[in-house]
Amino acid sequence: MAESWSFLDTFEHDFRPLVVIELAKGTKEETIEWFTKRIVDKKANGGAQLLVKPLVTENGDELIYLVGASHLRLLLGAETVGLVKECNDNSMRTFTYSSRKTFKDFADDNHSFLTVAECQYIIKHELENLRAKDEKMIPGYPQAKLYPGKSIVRRLLTSGILVQIFPLHDREELKKLRHSWYGRVKVGYQPLDEIRCYFGETIALYFGFLEYFTFALVPMAVIGIPYYVFAWEDYDKYVMFATFNLLWSTVILEVWKRICAIMTYRWGTLLMKRQFEEPRPGFHGVLGINPVTGREEPVYSSIKRQIRIYLVSLPFVCLCLYFSLYVMMIYFDLEQWALDYHEVNESTFSSLMLFVPSIIYAVVIEIMNRIYRYAAEFLTSWENHRLESSYQNHLVLKVLVFNFLNCFASLFYIAFVLFDMKLLRQSLATLLITSQILNQFAESLLPYWLQKRHKKRMKKRMCSLKTETDLPLVEQVNLEKEMGTYVGTFDDYLELFLQFGYVSLFSCVYPLAAVFAVLNNITEIYSDALKMCRVYKRPFAEPTANIGVWQLAFETMSVISVVTNCILIGMSPQVNAVFTDSKTDLILTVALVEHLLLAIKFIMAFVIPDKPRHIQIKLAKLEFESLEALKQQ
Amino acid sequence: MAESWSFLDTFEHDFRPLVVIELAKGTKEETIEWFTKRIVDKKANGGAQLLVKPLVTENGDELIYLVGASHLRLLLGAETVGLVKECNDNSMRTFTYSSRKTFKDFADDNHSFLTVAECQYIIKHELENLRAKDEKMIPGYPQAKLYPGKSIVRRLLTSGILVQIFPLHDREELKKLRHSWYGRVKVGYQPLDEIRCYFGETIALYFGFLEYFTFALVPMAVIGIPYYVFAWEDYDKYVMFATFNLLWSTVILEVWKRICAIMTYRWGTLLMKRQFEEPRPGFHGVLGINPVTGREEPVYSSIKRQIRIYLVSLPFVCLCLYFSLYVMMIYFDLEQWALDYHEVNESTFSSLMLFVPSIIYAVVIEIMNRIYRYAAEFLTSWENHRLESSYQNHLVLKVLVFNFLNCFASLFYIAFVLFDMKLLRQSLATLLITSQILNQFAESLLPYWLQKRHKKRMKKRMCSLKTETDLPLVEQVNLEKEMGTYVGTFDDYLELFLQFGYVSLFSCVYPLAAVFAVLNNITEIYSDALKMCRVYKRPFAEPTANIGVWQLAFETMSVISVVTNCILIGMSPQVNAVFTDSKTDLILTVALVEHLLLAIKFIMAFVIPDKPRHIQIKLAKLEFESLEALKQQ
Repeated sequence: MAESWSFLDTFEHDFRPLVVIELAKGTKEETIEWFTKRIVDKKANGGAQLLVKPLVTENGDELIYLVGASHLRLLLGAETVGLVKECNDNSMRTFTYSSRKTFKDFADDNHSFLTVAECQYIIKHELENLRAKDEKMIPGYPQAKLYPGKSIVRRLLTSGILVQIFPLHDREELKKLRHSWYGRVKVGYQPLDEIRCYFGETIALYFGFLEYFTFALVPMAVIGIPYYVFAWEDYDKYVMFATFNLLWSTVILEVWKRICAIMTYRWGTLLMKRQFEEPRPGFHGVLGINPVTGREEPVYSSIKRQIRIYLVSLPFVCLCLYFSLYVMMIYFDLEQWALDYHEVNESTFSSLMLFVPSIIYAVVIEIMNRIYRYAAEFLTSWENHRLESSYQNHLVLKVLVFNFLNCFASLFYIAFVLFDMKLLRQSLATLLITSQILNQFAESLLPYWLQKRHKKRMKKRMCSLKTETDLPLVEQVNLEKEMGTYVGTFDDYLELFLQFGYVSLFSCVYPLAAVFAVLNNITEIYSDALKMCRVYKRPFAEPTANIGVWQLAFETMSVISVVTNCILIGMSPQVNAVFTDSKTDLILTVALVEHLLLAIKFIMAFVIPDKPRHIQIKLAKLEFESLEALKQQ
Repeated sequence: MAESWSFLDTFEHDFRPLVVIELAKGTKEETIEWFTKRIVDKKANGGAQLLVKPLVTENGDELIYLVGASHLRLLLGAETVGLVKECNDNSMRTFTYSSRKTFKDFADDNHSFLTVAECQYIIKHELENLRAKDEKMIPGYPQAKLYPGKSIVRRLLTSGILVQIFPLHDREELKKLRHSWYGRVKVGYQPLDEIRCYFGETIALYFGFLEYFTFALVPMAVIGIPYYVFAWEDYDKYVMFATFNLLWSTVILEVWKRICAIMTYRWGTLLMKRQFEEPRPGFHGVLGINPVTGREEPVYSSIKRQIRIYLVSLPFVCLCLYFSLYVMMIYFDLEQWALDYHEVNESTFSSLMLFVPSIIYAVVIEIMNRIYRYAAEFLTSWENHRLESSYQNHLVLKVLVFNFLNCFASLFYIAFVLFDMKLLRQSLATLLITSQILNQFAESLLPYWLQKRHKKRMKKRMCSLKTETDLPLVEQVNLEKEMGTYVGTFDDYLELFLQFGYVSLFSCVYPLAAVFAVLNNITEIYSDALKMCRVYKRPFAEPTANIGVWQLAFETMSVISVVTNCILIGMSPQVNAVFTDSKTDLILTVALVEHLLLAIKFIMAFVIPDKPRHIQIKLAKLEFESLEALKQQ
């Protein structure tokens, strides 16, 4: 496979490798020829019109191809994906090739107008939207069926011919980024704009949210510390702390929307039209006409999807929830057993044994969460959502409901059925700390160690390669293709969501939770940064305008926490001591306070605008221009 | 004033009087000349470029002008106001003069392409946006100050020079509409499309909502009747009724959004861009640059407005609320006095006397509501909102809060402080029925009677007019200018809102309320129709896409009613009998049920899409086209 296609040679001089395609060893010649031909073919012929070059490795059986594109092709691709860039007049506009001169820093020979992450995103988009025309199967693999509209790359991946596609790291840029991100010890903000340029908006937004959330937790943590230090047990102080927490959590979630709007406006993603997303690569269906765009694309009946959701996914989720509750009851049996054991043989060992059920349960919860996650992904993928956003929403909903119940059911049971505040505090602390340790380990340390080991192995091999001319690139590709794949911000957000639950749901019982959360998040920023830069393959950039369904998830959590905290305060002995004569008055007071707090929350959410005024004006201006443009037509 | 301007004569042949302007008797000649010149002046010179013709009446001192416009001018005006019309391909598009040929039923000589209501709306819009340039005052009236950007018409109105502007009725059309609307006794839907063509979207939408709401109340009324007939007092039946009511009210409010979207899509208003509304005529400020459109227009600091809202309006509203509560306490004193009187001198008279305080209170409530309404209008106008929609929202919010407290405070007091269910039922019935009777009387019967009397007077005068040539027009204008002015759908929605409150807030105590509401609404449809067609001047059409802030108001009411109904059921003796041993259990159960119902409500509101799928697709298609158009630019 050392030959290269003749018509490629003409472009060779400006070929910059951006994306790596790895095919399975022993892939048939005709398949490779067909696939590469489709990639380089003209758009008009249904190709992606990109550049492909085989990578010559030391052992000839590895089939690795480097994909690039001409500068012009990338600019046209930027128009296709609807990138928004800053204009000369400082406004943000959707990039079009014909209006390219009006954009800031645009010059025909300026190849850094599009960031590398954007170029890679464009190439990924084009590759994924390479769809079968009249092919009935992948040439050479009769069992890998194709039908018009099926994404070729997805079929190659599912039939194991295509091992992986990933974007190449840019070693210079990465070094600079690492230095400014976590290279020096400093107190300050993360370089979010640089992270965005290198990793794309989704990841930058996650780090932005993580940072914001950590800062937002600081006041809670600061107020929480004296409660622990002085062992305050006055009910009025608890009420104050809980009330502050509840209102604060509303404020931070509302303010986040504004900060997010400012950031994504600057990045251009706030203006990117998401409703005209192409169907997600995994989406399949018969070729039809999209009623919105009038273009030919796969169509799948919405009723069929509804049936799959309500008749298969929903019952499955319910079954999992039941199983999770069953496991919880086993935990309580274990807990009881440990208590009995402690009573019979009292010793240091037996008092340590008291913590064992909680720790085991925390580990089991983590394992169940991870297994369920795969099932949920499979099911959601099978539901065949047309848009990536719809897929994500359904996946998040499934996972959230399960994780919420799985993590918090035992705490709810302890708090509102057993009424055991001491056990609640102990369980909460054990669950929170165990899950934080497990997560930090599973997320960063383990992959880091695995990768270190691999690098050592690679170094040994390197000696035999010294003679090659393009050694650095081959070495880089070989190193990176063995790195783990970052599967997206999902798990990171989920971790924050559950942490928010631990902090806010029972905040008045365990004010110290916020302190642990802040400490965890500070190390989390560093370990996540390390993980992004050193442990995982570079992920494809993904433009996004907000944290999507997570905003709603966090808001729902903050509503639920109003209810739980009010009940907890109502149950506290200090409050009960005030209402000694009438339990009814106590409950009525608690209910009244709860309703008031909820009302204040909703009014606050209503009164605080989601976008700052200057962003609103800029958006209105663009809408106005778009209307005027339509009029001119 | 019998002379006409020479340059108008050329257009005389196609002059169709659409709008009437009445100036005060004795207005100075120079003012009239200046004003009419501004109206007919070219757009480029800051005029409205309309046609004006003086109406020659029998007594020469009345200054009445008829305003019309050439067909071309109206089409250009339709583009300015952003009318949306149906195209030849059945899609709805914003009308532009250059693309006029693509619209359905468009022909250069087809003067019915725009409905008369639309023409009148355009003329009103142009007149109201006639703004002062370099004039310092209205010529001839040095005390009527003008400054650049001030709406001339508004200044003329406030200084009393301009008595009124109103659109002329179209007798032929009105006759047809009356016949199909309420001319024959029939069971069926109202001719909403015809109402929309004649009166515009705002009024048609009100009648659509009234009809929909009445139909929606029928199931509640049907279920409510047996409770009254059989005097069911079983708690399980009450719980069922209340639960049905609460879920039903959520469903009807969600479904209304969908129906509303279907209707307003057909009428084109769903697509009309509201964010580019011109400032409302009453808005004043110094000339500046609108940051959105880049055009010159009055600008008013948002901070100044906030100060007015929070430092003046808010305290005033609070004062009014306090006053309303004070009046309520007087009512309870009266009630007590009546009870004491009844106990001392028991007789038929004294038992009738028991109802008197409630009736007096109901009348006082109505009077207070009406007085407060004027104050709220004055204040909101003084707050100087830039957009009509913002003005309306603030006005509605002010009035709603006051009316809610004014109408329902006594009921809340009876229910949750006095715990007197019998008095609650009696008060509720008295308030509901009294307010319905008062409203029907004040809204329709009184103006109808006044207008009948006026017509008789007119007929007498008519004998002396027989010699005039254009008698019908003069007669029509004279008749219509004396008719009352319809001040908008505000009061009508408010009435429905309060009715919804009476029906839903305490529905489990008085299931018959829904029956009264349905009966009232059926007569309301007819009396409102009569009022629109015969009692009031024709109102200007006002395009609108939804019922705006009223949707939120109704939804809030339905949330509040979940809370009140749950408490009421919890307080009922039947339910208390079940939980004899533990009052705490009762309250906890009630709280649990309430939270469950609220959760179901929110999930339902979340799951039911606001727009039907086919409307969503059509909207997405237009957005897509607008994006493509911007790309082409």
